[in-house]
Amino acid sequence: MRETSQNPYIASAKFNRKAIQVSEAQKRAHSLVGSARIEKVPIHEANGRFLAEDVFAPHPYPFFRRSGMDGYAIRCEDVEQASSNQVIWLKVIDDIPCGYASDMILTETTAARIMTGAMVPEGADAVVMLEATESRTEGGTSWVGIKRPMDQGANITPVGFEVRPDELLLRQGTRITAGELSVLATFGIHQVPVFSKPIVAVFATGTELLRVDEPLQPGKIRNSNTIMLASQIEQAGGIAVVQDSVPDDIELARQRLDQAIQEYDFIVTSGGVSVGDYDIMGDLVRRPEVDMLFNKVTMRPGSVTTAAVVQGKLLFALSGNPGACYVGFELFVRPAIRKMLGDQQPYLETWTATLRQDFNKVNNFTRFVRSRLEIEDGRVWVTPAAIDESSVMVSIKDSDCLMIVPPEQKGLQAGTQVQVLKLER
Amino acid sequence: MRETSQNPYIASAKFNRKAIQVSEAQKRAHSLVGSARIEKVPIHEANGRFLAEDVFAPHPYPFFRRSGMDGYAIRCEDVEQASSNQVIWLKVIDDIPCGYASDMILTETTAARIMTGAMVPEGADAVVMLEATESRTEGGTSWVGIKRPMDQGANITPVGFEVRPDELLLRQGTRITAGELSVLATFGIHQVPVFSKPIVAVFATGTELLRVDEPLQPGKIRNSNTIMLASQIEQAGGIAVVQDSVPDDIELARQRLDQAIQEYDFIVTSGGVSVGDYDIMGDLVRRPEVDMLFNKVTMRPGSVTTAAVVQGKLLFALSGNPGACYVGFELFVRPAIRKMLGDQQPYLETWTATLRQDFNKVNNFTRFVRSRLEIEDGRVWVTPAAIDESSVMVSIKDSDCLMIVPPEQKGLQAGTQVQVLKLER
Repeated sequence: MRETSQNPYIASAKFNRKAIQVSEAQKRAHSLVGSARIEKVPIHEANGRFLAEDVFAPHPYPFFRRSGMDGYAIRCEDVEQASSNQVIWLKVIDDIPCGYASDMILTETTAARIMTGAMVPEGADAVVMLEATESRTEGGTSWVGIKRPMDQGANITPVGFEVRPDELLLRQGTRITAGELSVLATFGIHQVPVFSKPIVAVFATGTELLRVDEPLQPGKIRNSNTIMLASQIEQAGGIAVVQDSVPDDIELARQRLDQAIQEYDFIVTSGGVSVGDYDIMGDLVRRPEVDMLFNKVTMRPGSVTTAAVVQGKLLFALSGNPGACYVGFELFVRPAIRKMLGDQQPYLETWTATLRQDFNKVNNFTRFVRSRLEIEDGRVWVTPAAIDESSVMVSIKDSDCLMIVPPEQKGLQAGTQVQVLKLER
Repeated sequence: MRETSQNPYIASAKFNRKAIQVSEAQKRAHSLVGSARIEKVPIHEANGRFLAEDVFAPHPYPFFRRSGMDGYAIRCEDVEQASSNQVIWLKVIDDIPCGYASDMILTETTAARIMTGAMVPEGADAVVMLEATESRTEGGTSWVGIKRPMDQGANITPVGFEVRPDELLLRQGTRITAGELSVLATFGIHQVPVFSKPIVAVFATGTELLRVDEPLQPGKIRNSNTIMLASQIEQAGGIAVVQDSVPDDIELARQRLDQAIQEYDFIVTSGGVSVGDYDIMGDLVRRPEVDMLFNKVTMRPGSVTTAAVVQGKLLFALSGNPGACYVGFELFVRPAIRKMLGDQQPYLETWTATLRQDFNKVNNFTRFVRSRLEIEDGRVWVTPAAIDESSVMVSIKDSDCLMIVPPEQKGLQAGTQVQVLKLER
């Protein structure tokens, strides 16, 4: 029989956890999170990063009067009398492809051949589409025939029509993807201010844990939570620093925690928070020098989810159960990372959906059920991914949302409107 | 005036493009796409990759009889007569935390203290939860008192209850994210077979293009499409090889194209496909040695989207208009990348949604309107992001779907059910 050394103070405290609501737990943890440092990165490294400043247009767009047609730039007053019976011929004095600024100024009864997207020459005030014109060449001189009058500005996009100077282009906290890169590039913002990625140390606790590349041994399981959490951290926008798992040794865990606290922005652990004998993370956050924020939340799975401030840094001690660990991350750690990154909506998006089938698992705590969404006929439907305990192992990968089941005396019937938290995958 | 040298054959061909439907164009291009090579990567590098093989369970899960409770492992037959009036006392012969295999076998009237997740010892056939027991110690020996009979197997998860050996865990073509990593790690699959990332060369054409870090010049614009496409390629699962843009010089473009064809899996270009004077990509795919798949599609924007096979490799020549370029990528290039990666659903997911406001822009071609989704009361609503031409510049970043507007004589009224292609962001 093995010794189970215990601090008597801790032993009594661990059974007296005070459960708080998820929203209250989120508030306690996330109110402590500030913004990450700001750095500038070259635009080709900005994909997926979070913008650290509002970006305003440094110039109008378009920057020049842009032809919307392939055709001829003309002066409207020259063609006021044009009709199919009275073609008015203008002398073509230039041919302006994209990328060129014509050095010619259109004067009376002249025109310029112009391409879509090219800069309309000075003096012109309309573009006639190619198909509506005739052309002829005489002795090396080209002429274009116009068959109807044109409105001032026709087929010309004015300067600043799409974007005015100093217009807000992108908000601080926006995640930079294809569309944002297009905007940044258009305005020449080649050094992009972004929030530094929060660096998150992650390790699991438990003597039962094997490395992923170790053969199985009786009584042991492979550590799957660390790599799962690393993926979640990267998806949230952070950098995961994966550490070896810690056996159930409180002194070893304390050393590892205190070292990680020195070096990283957050610490995330899995395991060691239940009220069993070896719940070392639970014990560690009950030390007097640690500011425990919560160690019980009225949620399933993951009621033992724990958060604390250790030397000014946030520690999230998640359940060792893979499903609870996953949910705990999404509810508590992801928003902390996103808040550091300036995300104005750090929490998972809430959707309403119609429950596809009866859900009979009830509880006195709010349940976050790993579930799957379908869109059908413009409606959102939700089906729990884990229909019974036998599917726990696979239900994380089969989920794209967490269905929120409020504490109820009875189950939820198919057809009920429920709220779901949409997962980002 | 500049020379516009033209091959007369090409000059006539470029105005005689035969428009085909999007689905037909997709079929022509994507039927030619095979699977990427397979490589093995360490599990910590597998996040975001696409699985190259079906993965089957190499062993049952759980691998051992697992206690579902913190309590005592017992033999049911010992406690058949137990009741609150007749507590049956069992001798505690071991204490089994997680990670240990007990070397004791439970014999008549013995029990073992056991933790949640620990391996149930041989001889035991039920676990009694701690709270339902009494305990006492006499002369160094621990005893546990049981107050009611137990069912065979109670609180024990049998071997293979969650996953049977050889059960299909993950399908070929699945994108590996947190949930999949959890499964792979659990089963010790530390070298993961994934499809090699398709390597996609991307460049823009156009004399009007400036680099992102160049100051503006009259008539010129910065090249925003290349970096946008690079982001889309990465999001799709490929590697983008970004090349400098090519001025409107068909010989230069031909050299660049032919060189890129030697080295990369696909080529994506933007610009040079309209029927203007300098549409060099359009000209290049009309060479006899090129197998042009299509150069006009009945869609807006991007009707000039072009695809061809050049020396056995696919070339996608997208429109230079940023919105058309974006849409052309999502409809044609992304699925090609995804098909190489074994994705069983390489196309954007189609949802139905209710149109939030009237949409009056009509056309004889199908429109793919950059739009925004909202979920409200369990219904999907869609609002066009570009309400008029002045918002073209910003509508890519403001979109999370493409609303499909079929060719119509009249517009679509608010409240109409429409189909949308959900963008992955």
